[in-house]
Amino acid sequence: MLRSGLSLALLAALAILPVLQAAEPHAPEVDPRIGTGGDGHVFPGATVPFGMIQLSPDTAMPDFKRAYKWAAGYQYNDPTIMGFSHTHFSGSGHSDLGDVLVMPIAGDVKLDPGDEKVPGSGYRSRFEHTSEVEQAGYYAVTLSDYGVRAEFTANRRVGWHRYTFPAAKPAHLLLDLRPSIYDYPGKVLWSSLQVRADGTITGCRTTRGWAPGRELCFALRFNQPMTARALYNRETDLPYKGFKGPGYQPQDQNAQNGRAIVGVFDFGKLKAPLQVKVAISPVSEANAVANLDQDGKGWNFDEQRHSAMEAWNKALAPIDMDGSKPLRTQFYTALYHALMSPSLSMDVNNEYRGPDHQVHRTDGFDFYSSWSIWDVYRAQQPLMILLHPDRSVDFVRSLIAAQQASPFGMLPVWAYQGLETWCMTGYHAVAIIADAYVKGIRGYDADKAMQAMLSTATYGDYGDLDDYMKLGYVPIDKEVEGGSKTQEYAYDDWAIAQMAKAMGKHDIYDGFEKRAGYWRNGWDPKTGFMRARLSGGQFREPFDPASAGYGDDYTEANAWQYSWYVPQDVAGLITAMGGDRAFTHKLDELFDAKVDPAIFKNVEDITGLIGWYAHGNEPSHHIAYLYDYAGQPWKTQARLKQIMDNEYGPGPAGLIGNDDLGQMSAWYIFTALGFYPVTPASDEYAIGRPFVPRATIHLGNGRSFTVSCAPFDDVHPYVGQVTLNGKPLDRVYLKHADILVGGELHFTMQAQPNRDWGKSASARPTAMSPYR
Amino acid sequence: MLRSGLSLALLAALAILPVLQAAEPHAPEVDPRIGTGGDGHVFPGATVPFGMIQLSPDTAMPDFKRAYKWAAGYQYNDPTIMGFSHTHFSGSGHSDLGDVLVMPIAGDVKLDPGDEKVPGSGYRSRFEHTSEVEQAGYYAVTLSDYGVRAEFTANRRVGWHRYTFPAAKPAHLLLDLRPSIYDYPGKVLWSSLQVRADGTITGCRTTRGWAPGRELCFALRFNQPMTARALYNRETDLPYKGFKGPGYQPQDQNAQNGRAIVGVFDFGKLKAPLQVKVAISPVSEANAVANLDQDGKGWNFDEQRHSAMEAWNKALAPIDMDGSKPLRTQFYTALYHALMSPSLSMDVNNEYRGPDHQVHRTDGFDFYSSWSIWDVYRAQQPLMILLHPDRSVDFVRSLIAAQQASPFGMLPVWAYQGLETWCMTGYHAVAIIADAYVKGIRGYDADKAMQAMLSTATYGDYGDLDDYMKLGYVPIDKEVEGGSKTQEYAYDDWAIAQMAKAMGKHDIYDGFEKRAGYWRNGWDPKTGFMRARLSGGQFREPFDPASAGYGDDYTEANAWQYSWYVPQDVAGLITAMGGDRAFTHKLDELFDAKVDPAIFKNVEDITGLIGWYAHGNEPSHHIAYLYDYAGQPWKTQARLKQIMDNEYGPGPAGLIGNDDLGQMSAWYIFTALGFYPVTPASDEYAIGRPFVPRATIHLGNGRSFTVSCAPFDDVHPYVGQVTLNGKPLDRVYLKHADILVGGELHFTMQAQPNRDWGKSASARPTAMSPYR
Repeated sequence: MLRSGLSLALLAALAILPVLQAAEPHAPEVDPRIGTGGDGHVFPGATVPFGMIQLSPDTAMPDFKRAYKWAAGYQYNDPTIMGFSHTHFSGSGHSDLGDVLVMPIAGDVKLDPGDEKVPGSGYRSRFEHTSEVEQAGYYAVTLSDYGVRAEFTANRRVGWHRYTFPAAKPAHLLLDLRPSIYDYPGKVLWSSLQVRADGTITGCRTTRGWAPGRELCFALRFNQPMTARALYNRETDLPYKGFKGPGYQPQDQNAQNGRAIVGVFDFGKLKAPLQVKVAISPVSEANAVANLDQDGKGWNFDEQRHSAMEAWNKALAPIDMDGSKPLRTQFYTALYHALMSPSLSMDVNNEYRGPDHQVHRTDGFDFYSSWSIWDVYRAQQPLMILLHPDRSVDFVRSLIAAQQASPFGMLPVWAYQGLETWCMTGYHAVAIIADAYVKGIRGYDADKAMQAMLSTATYGDYGDLDDYMKLGYVPIDKEVEGGSKTQEYAYDDWAIAQMAKAMGKHDIYDGFEKRAGYWRNGWDPKTGFMRARLSGGQFREPFDPASAGYGDDYTEANAWQYSWYVPQDVAGLITAMGGDRAFTHKLDELFDAKVDPAIFKNVEDITGLIGWYAHGNEPSHHIAYLYDYAGQPWKTQARLKQIMDNEYGPGPAGLIGNDDLGQMSAWYIFTALGFYPVTPASDEYAIGRPFVPRATIHLGNGRSFTVSCAPFDDVHPYVGQVTLNGKPLDRVYLKHADILVGGELHFTMQAQPNRDWGKSASARPTAMSPYR
Repeated sequence: MLRSGLSLALLAALAILPVLQAAEPHAPEVDPRIGTGGDGHVFPGATVPFGMIQLSPDTAMPDFKRAYKWAAGYQYNDPTIMGFSHTHFSGSGHSDLGDVLVMPIAGDVKLDPGDEKVPGSGYRSRFEHTSEVEQAGYYAVTLSDYGVRAEFTANRRVGWHRYTFPAAKPAHLLLDLRPSIYDYPGKVLWSSLQVRADGTITGCRTTRGWAPGRELCFALRFNQPMTARALYNRETDLPYKGFKGPGYQPQDQNAQNGRAIVGVFDFGKLKAPLQVKVAISPVSEANAVANLDQDGKGWNFDEQRHSAMEAWNKALAPIDMDGSKPLRTQFYTALYHALMSPSLSMDVNNEYRGPDHQVHRTDGFDFYSSWSIWDVYRAQQPLMILLHPDRSVDFVRSLIAAQQASPFGMLPVWAYQGLETWCMTGYHAVAIIADAYVKGIRGYDADKAMQAMLSTATYGDYGDLDDYMKLGYVPIDKEVEGGSKTQEYAYDDWAIAQMAKAMGKHDIYDGFEKRAGYWRNGWDPKTGFMRARLSGGQFREPFDPASAGYGDDYTEANAWQYSWYVPQDVAGLITAMGGDRAFTHKLDELFDAKVDPAIFKNVEDITGLIGWYAHGNEPSHHIAYLYDYAGQPWKTQARLKQIMDNEYGPGPAGLIGNDDLGQMSAWYIFTALGFYPVTPASDEYAIGRPFVPRATIHLGNGRSFTVSCAPFDDVHPYVGQVTLNGKPLDRVYLKHADILVGGELHFTMQAQPNRDWGKSASARPTAMSPYR
């Protein structure tokens, strides 16, 4: 790859910069409450970066019909906590998980959780937000109904609990294998619970949720002996309860299996806090036990809490940002949220479950899953390449490993715990891999990666790729959302082409650059929108650019939103739209439109509207940067300010839409730093403007890259001049190599737009298709 | 162990007998049709001795409400075959299995099996019995509706299929993961099916049948390439079908998972037969593939069929029986049926699933399961000790291994594929182990075995052992069938005592001999029956010795049948009943009673009535031999003839009751040989009379023991004299050592009873409790 070759040459030519002194740790700045209300769908509980465990309070796990707001199990305004479960997605739209739910109970035990709005109706308990402590790697709350102080921390594979019970009441821990996020009758296919001879409690649960037939196993230990226990099977209404003839089983106080298993473990009146460790495994109970064993025999909760925070300090360390306390909180919480996915999905013996539901073993890398790829390929994964390039190697290897184990030979689409959900569209895993390759990430088998990408992009049965390859577009009469799928496939194809080019595979490059140009087949010059075509070639009628709904022409969007999706050839799109003036005029129309949000009432994820622009959902994420491509970067700057001011904030309502496994937050980080990867798999970042006064990125190669901005205030929202290492930068984009060599990008801000900077054609980002 | 020590000394003192010349192979004598109609519940398909695969035609798998007659999937009188599945119990009462059902289809494919009484209503096909070939290790049938000749053979872990299709029609193989023996709505919890890159088809199915949460995996290969395939998920009526938003999965022609999966594999018009190999694994798909791999790449069906018959020849070789062709068929088919359980439940990598549902690994033995222990401890396992002592070692080791993995620390009760069903009563696995130990079987850790027995016999939660240990009986107000449970526990305790004594563990011996005497707590001298007591001590009223029903005082029996169950102390029972005369009088009453079979209409397993004697169920099995213990062996001889004449026969109706995993058949073999293990865990066999003219048992130690009988005809039904190695034998029992040293037991038969032989007290079998 030429670009990366250049950057290495530059690196060699430069003197090594002195290592900066360690800054203050950043984990204490994190406020996990941000986004735990509204549509943020993040969880407040304890986890470590990319950890397997997300140990967090659940306020409700309602039926799928109204589950949307409880995608992370917790809604800030709920009055009660039903328990603490060990797996959560951070910011997903659709959801699942909430596995291994436990609840400490002082006094009488109720076996059902009860109504989330009715304290006392079950084992759930009231709580006050004033009693909550949310920190990176730590969460605490007092359960008012029981007087129990509950504290949680975690490491990569083990959740740690510490419960301080009132001295006068007998202490119990309830373990409920029934509840599940996005629940519905019959979701739990089977579950098991056993108390082993050494007191370890183990079990598994198989659910038919987002990933059908997902089995999650667990192993749990206490720091104090049980005085008694009871394992219940609460299932009723079975047509046939199995053999109930002459034989009868022992009272099942050692083991239960079924579809509605609850365990209650008694400890009597306790003088010291009850501690619990819970390990999980997507492979087997034996592996869960091994994961727990590896955690050791210690019970030093505070030390574990400290380690978790240290893990966050380390993960957050690649950026030192100067700024006000509220800004630091916002920034580091966003970075915190961007450092959770994909999450570890591999046991201590290196075994993991693949999309074929089989057990596999890694050789020399950690297997990660929880791949919200339609979201994270845009900015979250590019951010990881910048901040955690070593981790990116394992992410790429995990993608390849998943493809190798796929019954379809396909890279993940939306996967978690190794399994595929087929959620969302496109095959953007190719963009993650190509982006890594183009930016110099190595340490995996690039040929195997390319084979995986080709295998994915030619799997005709997926999303009507068959017709796409034949017709050059996805016909809407054959495939829902054919309009947006054509656009997404074309971008993915371009990403494949870029990696092929870098690898010297010219045939592949040519073939996929050609496919990259298929975006034009969606373009309707008459209406000026991207549209869906029928098999016969004509556009589908009637056409309403405002229309959006599931199964419509576009994925979670309308024509206003999707018509900008040609990241691989923005110049071509500008030409198609009639040139710079028409293009920027239409962008203005987009942002300035008067839109009734009710138009999107049937599409859950479209939130944060500014005109038609919907920052709460990903198809909009690159749009504000597109002014850069048409000579009007000052409008990008203005729009970014509008978005930063309106779509992000402190507190539970601080995320206007689903964080989508870190994509919303990664958008924030890039934008705050002043640049954004509009086109992953190119080595360019479009320049916006910083929203921090100064930030230094500590790169994996030992160098640093600083962004600074002055004056940094609300009355100087426009970029006057940009210098890179003291020299004026005329172009409105950065190259990845610019960052890797280290240095400083300085923005001089001003009250009025600088309409000249970035106006010339040569100043614009260049990512484009040669077929334009 | 004194007895075994003696036998070894005797062995040492004797010259080694010359090895006998190999007799004609016996597998060709076997007629697997015997018992496939009526209540026999055996299957006609292909299997090898103790094999993991039982590949057999299924005529129906009805709902549990009427499933009883289809416990083995096949009923002789049914007009159609729905398919061929790979797992079946041989003769069970309750049932399960029928896994991995396949059906060859020529021409149009129907996806549902249709009505068993309505040919053409689904993929099932008519067949004629004249087209069937049933042999040991081979089964063939012509499917009339398709014109397909279907042939099957098997080895230990792999089922082999050969289908000859009509040349003019396209050939298909349908694989249906929905049907299951003892079916009911919701029984299939989950299943998966995938076509791997190399063409291997794999999958798993989890069911909540007799053993809840049982997972069985499989791997399948064809000898010819598929031309096409289609994998279907036929589930309907789901409240929530998973995420059906923007994302859509590829058409699932490579993988499906769900609760109603059907695969159809197409081969076009075939010139050569389609062959299929199917391996199964209770552990994982990977293990199923490994099992299939070990089978090799060959497709020589006829060679495999030959190997299967050779395996049967070898397993049947320990007895050479001379007799008429019909008698040989009856005898060797009974022996064949006695050589199927327990069945192998371990993969080629030595992994098996335990009752904790976890994966374990053997060290130096084969793990067997399918333990119908309440049945087989009586005669089938003692027969294995005699004929296949090496195999018995692994059976004992399998029992111990299962106990080690039990969450309850209990030996198997009724287990299959490693999992526990808790079916039937008692803890008779201790009798199997003690019987093996007492008879000199070694090669396992006897101390661990004893610990396993003690752990089992003191697990208070099981079958109210708590009260049994406290009160000396199982109170009927606390535990159903308390009456018979008291009797069974007492016998099991005696078995433990015998092994403890042999091991020199006197404390254990004393404790369990005391418990062995608890049978007396069930004895009611007033009515002269064994009865159930209430917690307060009094017998339950009202009492009707004819009453029988589930949840009643006795297990699948009434007081008439259960009052004889004191195998450990028949002499004590005789005394309790008032001496020899009263005892034999009551036995006569039992056999001669006029009984309306309708009295047992609610208890499925009580069949084959002779008076109250029910040969179709196990509690009666020892009763005819009890005359021996009261000085009237001639009456034993007469009753045995009555039973042999009435309860066994040729053809599909040849088994009067469920074969119960070989117990009915093992009873036949012992009785035909002239002796029977009334009290397993003693070293004695009560002598009846032979029902074969001559039979030689080839023992594991290289010696032979011959039984001969003359004149052998219907008009000489009584024993006149018995000689052992030419010397008159006064006692009416054999000791195990008598057999082990080799020799000949000759019966001189006569027309009239010899009322003197066996009359004296010293002639009687001695197994008894010192507490009598």
